[in-house]
Order: sequence, then structure tokens, then C-alpha cells
Amino acid sequence: MRIGELVTPALLVDADALEHNLATMAVALPGARLRPHVKAHKCTALAKLQAAKGHKSFTCATIREVEGMAAAGLGDDLLLANEVLDASRLGRLDARVTVAVDSLQTIEAAVKGGVKEVLIDVNVGLPRCGCPPDNAGELAGMAKSRGLTVRGVMGYEGHAVGLDDRGLRQELVAASMAHLVKAHAAVGGDIISAGATGSYDINTWANEIQAGSYALMDTAYAKLGLPFKQALTVLATVISVSPDGYAVANCGLKSLAMDHGKPDMLGGGDVLIVSDEHITFVPEGSVAVGDLVRILPAHIDPTVAYHQQLHLFRGDEVLESWDVDLRWW
Amino acid sequence: MRIGELVTPALLVDADALEHNLATMAVALPGARLRPHVKAHKCTALAKLQAAKGHKSFTCATIREVEGMAAAGLGDDLLLANEVLDASRLGRLDARVTVAVDSLQTIEAAVKGGVKEVLIDVNVGLPRCGCPPDNAGELAGMAKSRGLTVRGVMGYEGHAVGLDDRGLRQELVAASMAHLVKAHAAVGGDIISAGATGSYDINTWANEIQAGSYALMDTAYAKLGLPFKQALTVLATVISVSPDGYAVANCGLKSLAMDHGKPDMLGGGDVLIVSDEHITFVPEGSVAVGDLVRILPAHIDPTVAYHQQLHLFRGDEVLESWDVDLRWW
Repeated sequence: MRIGELVTPALLVDADALEHNLATMAVALPGARLRPHVKAHKCTALAKLQAAKGHKSFTCATIREVEGMAAAGLGDDLLLANEVLDASRLGRLDARVTVAVDSLQTIEAAVKGGVKEVLIDVNVGLPRCGCPPDNAGELAGMAKSRGLTVRGVMGYEGHAVGLDDRGLRQELVAASMAHLVKAHAAVGGDIISAGATGSYDINTWANEIQAGSYALMDTAYAKLGLPFKQALTVLATVISVSPDGYAVANCGLKSLAMDHGKPDMLGGGDVLIVSDEHITFVPEGSVAVGDLVRILPAHIDPTVAYHQQLHLFRGDEVLESWDVDLRWW
Repeated sequence: MRIGELVTPALLVDADALEHNLATMAVALPGARLRPHVKAHKCTALAKLQAAKGHKSFTCATIREVEGMAAAGLGDDLLLANEVLDASRLGRLDARVTVAVDSLQTIEAAVKGGVKEVLIDVNVGLPRCGCPPDNAGELAGMAKSRGLTVRGVMGYEGHAVGLDDRGLRQELVAASMAHLVKAHAAVGGDIISAGATGSYDINTWANEIQAGSYALMDTAYAKLGLPFKQALTVLATVISVSPDGYAVANCGLKSLAMDHGKPDMLGGGDVLIVSDEHITFVPEGSVAVGDLVRILPAHIDPTVAYHQQLHLFRGDEVLESWDVDLRWW
């Protein structure tokens, strides 16, 4: 199939950029040093390529992601790096499932749901989940007393990983990981899990990195000067051209997320507004009604979650179409 | 089923608020005076309730929406208020389909695809689709010469409908509609289609209003002081409570859209950050891990597009679960 035959808007994945990204990361963080986060792409076909590069343990954000990975035969070591109050769907899976806990209630949920292994989720500065570092040891004791195996700790330095200034990023990652290392000393276990694409080469305290965006990338992460290429674009059709110098393509708020700001036009151009089904832009050169354009989303995760498929392409050819099969909850 | 049995995050529709909204609009704009826009809810079950209130003609934004409405038996008079370059899927439908055109190319696409009826889409000030008002007559002539029936004009005053200041909104709607009325004089036909929830009682120039959000509403439209109630919330579970005074629920960027800004917590509370699967908020009162909370999205359309179902409820009971069956393209 040719790209021009796709119904637009459609998610395109540049095959060479993806291969570059997967290979680059596999050298930097080989095997279990990387626990790829599937929330960024929500696609078991892509996860299989990550596994083929040597990463057999994965990070998930939702129960549905864990279920989908298990069903796809990728259940060697699945971490749900998130708190859940009903773990019964996890306990039923034919897979090794570890769940994050940060409270008595989430420990009880793991026990009740039949999950055997947990990580103590530690707050390392991001105002989100995780227990205070000083409470980690006590929580681990509670978990063990309820029959759970505590594999170690996790702590996400999400307030640090997106900072443009590498020096500042390093400082904040170091400060965050000081909390996590201290908590780990009290908790024990083999695993110190943390990190993201923005700290993959900075976070040397964690022994596994939960990076996900590196595979496909977005414009927010592109600003950090990382060695990963933009592999993901939204393909759209120009449906209207105004004599006032702007054009409109059929890609809007239901095909890309705006929480990290406006997208960019691949090849240049200025995005004026994005509405439900439209993007209005001033093109770099001339465009005509019917032309295909490609748009670089600012934030990959909630962009992919809008789509049914990722289309792997090279040149003008669609090589494979992958289901975004890990959507929803 | 009880609300507490739903997998969270989940979209809830307040049955009484929805009924109030549908009834209020049916009185204000009875029958064909309203051409409900299905892009806001993407749900044929909800569209059937609109039809039961007397609105038999509908507005769609995508080919998929037109297909789904036709398949659901709601194909009496479907307007695709958008430009398409491949109308072949529309031409095959067993339904009355009218498509917006604003260029020679979109006219040719309608002819080639087998669509028989069109509206001339006129730019009335929003930098998006639509021909210049002065070109509308000429375009209508071209469409007629190619064998198409021109039913009239449409023009969306999207730059006006969301303005908080009612006086300013009235001014801009009037200025926009002056363009549309002028274009209509050159084009002819029975239909002058325009408007939205924010101009439903202001736009007296159009003879049919394309409102969609009124049925479920969002916090952006709530600011306008319209007589419609907030019927849509996202149900989420509190998964973590920090000793620092904030809590975290499992509703994030993949379950609500952020293009119109942060959501609000129903019943009060201050939203701090929204990340992929989390909302961090300072609760109004005390909350505990496991509590259910409800979140009011800022923009309904791209919020609903993330979900598989809308759950109609009253009190603690889920009355019906409707598929969001008009998603994608």
C-alpha cells in the first residue's frame, strides 16, 4: 500500500528512524537496563521489536496494558508502574506481574487481587504517586508481612526529565535519586526502577530505566538534543487553501494532543490554530488542496491514544500497519 | 450496575442534566431549526435521543460519522460540514448526504464520489475552511454545472461562539452572518447553516444551527452562562493521597483533552497537574485512597473521542452504557 491510499488523518512511523532509535537505546541501555514503557506507543507489535533488541521486561501504566502485553506473549516481567485499587484482573494473568504500591490500601489490593510481587513506589519530588521516602521501609515491611515479595523500589523524576537545560536536569535527577537510593536502602530488593527518555543517560542511580518516548519521539523531547529521531508524524490531507495565505488540513484535536502545546509542520510552516478536526497553518512553500502534509505532535503518548493504528513506512510505501492494541483501561 | 463497579476512568452522563439540555434546546430550536452536531458526542444512541426530540437532520464532521449515522438509521438528512477529497464512501451510503464544498477540487470530489447535494462553505471570519464570501456564487455555479444540487450555504463563526462577553459575541456573530447572508443571496437554496452552542440563541440569520456541545456541555461553554447543565464528567478513582495535602486520581491526558485548559474537580478542589494517566489535585475536603471523584473536562469533543463508552447514570445507578461508535475517520 502507498501512503496516499491511507485514510487521513493517520499515524505514520518512519521505519528507519524507529530502527535508529531502538538500536541506539539498546546500545546505551542493553537488556534489562531498559524496561521500555509501553504507555508511549500502546502497541504490542512495537513492543515485540523492543523485545527483539534484548529488552524482555516492560513497564505499563494501566491494567489494560499489562493484560495486552501478557496476551501478546510479552509477559516475562511486566511492571505496572502505577497504583491500582482492584488488582483482580492482574492476578488472573499468565505472566509475571509486579505492581507499584505506595499505601496500605494498594498493598491490600495487591494481596486481594492475587498479585505476588510489588515495588515500593517512592515520591522523589514529582507531585504524584509514591510514598514519602522515609516511609518506604515501613511500607515494605507491611507488604512482606502480607505475604508479598518486595522486589525493590521505583520513583519517577517526572519533574526533571523534560527540562531543556541539561545541567539543571542532571541536578534535579541527582536530587530525586538521592531520595530513591535512601528508600532502597530501607526496602531492599534487586530493583531500583526510575527514569524516562529525558534522563536515560543521566540517571545512573537506577538500575533500570522506564523510557518509552525514545522509540517514536515527539517535539517536546526533541528539544532536549537527545540522539533519537522523530519517528512519528500524523499524515493529513490539505482540504482547503485560503487566498489569505493559510491552508487547512484534516488533522485536529481528535488526532493529536495539545497538552504540550501546538504541533509542528514537518518541513516548516506556522501552525495558527488547531480545532477538533482541523489544523490551520501558514505553509512554508505553496500547497494545494489534496496535498498530503505531515505533522509532528508535541506529546506522543496522548496522541497515539487517539488512533487505531500505527503505519510503518519507508519512502512512499506502507510496510506494515500495527494495531494500537493497548488503549483504554 | 452501580457506578462503583465501572472500570475507571469512565465517562459519566447525568441522565437528568442530559434530558434538561435536550428538552431546553428542543424548545428553543425545534425540529429542523437545529441540526445537531454529532462530533461533540460521537454516539448514535445519544443522537437517537436528539431525533426523538424532533431533530431529524444532523451535522457530521467526518466521513466515519456520516457512515455511522446512516448505519444507525439516522440518515434522513446528514450534512458533512467539512471538506473531503475522497467522497466515495459517502456516495455509497443509503442515506441523504450533503457535503460542504469550498473549492473546485472538493466539488470534483463530490461528483466523483457520487454525492448528489452540496452546501457552499463560506468563510465568515474563522481562519479555517470556506471560500471567500464573494466567490460563493461562482462556486455554486460550478457545482450546478457539474450536476450537483446546491442546497444553500454554511459558514461557521467559530471565532465568535466561545467568547465569554455576550455583547462581543453578538457583534461578531452579526458581522460573520452578514458575510453568509450575502453569500446566500448569490448562491440560493433553502439552507443557511451556521452556529454552535455558543450562538444558538444569537444567530438569527441562519435557518439551522449546528450545535453539538449543548447536550453534554463542558467547562469552556459553562462560562457563557447558557441554560444548559454540565452533563458530562470523567469518573476516576483516588489511587494515592500525599501527606503534603494533594491527592492523585487515575484520570489523565488519555481520558480528557487539555486544549481548552485544565479540567475542574466536581465539588471543588484545585487541579495541580495532569499527566498521561493521572490528575494531581488539592481536594476541597478530605479524600481517601479508593474514593471516587468526578472531573469536568474543559472541552468535551476531544475528551469523548478518547473513550469507548458513555455511561448514563442517575444517583448511584448506571442506567445504560452507550458505545462512542462514531470515533475515527
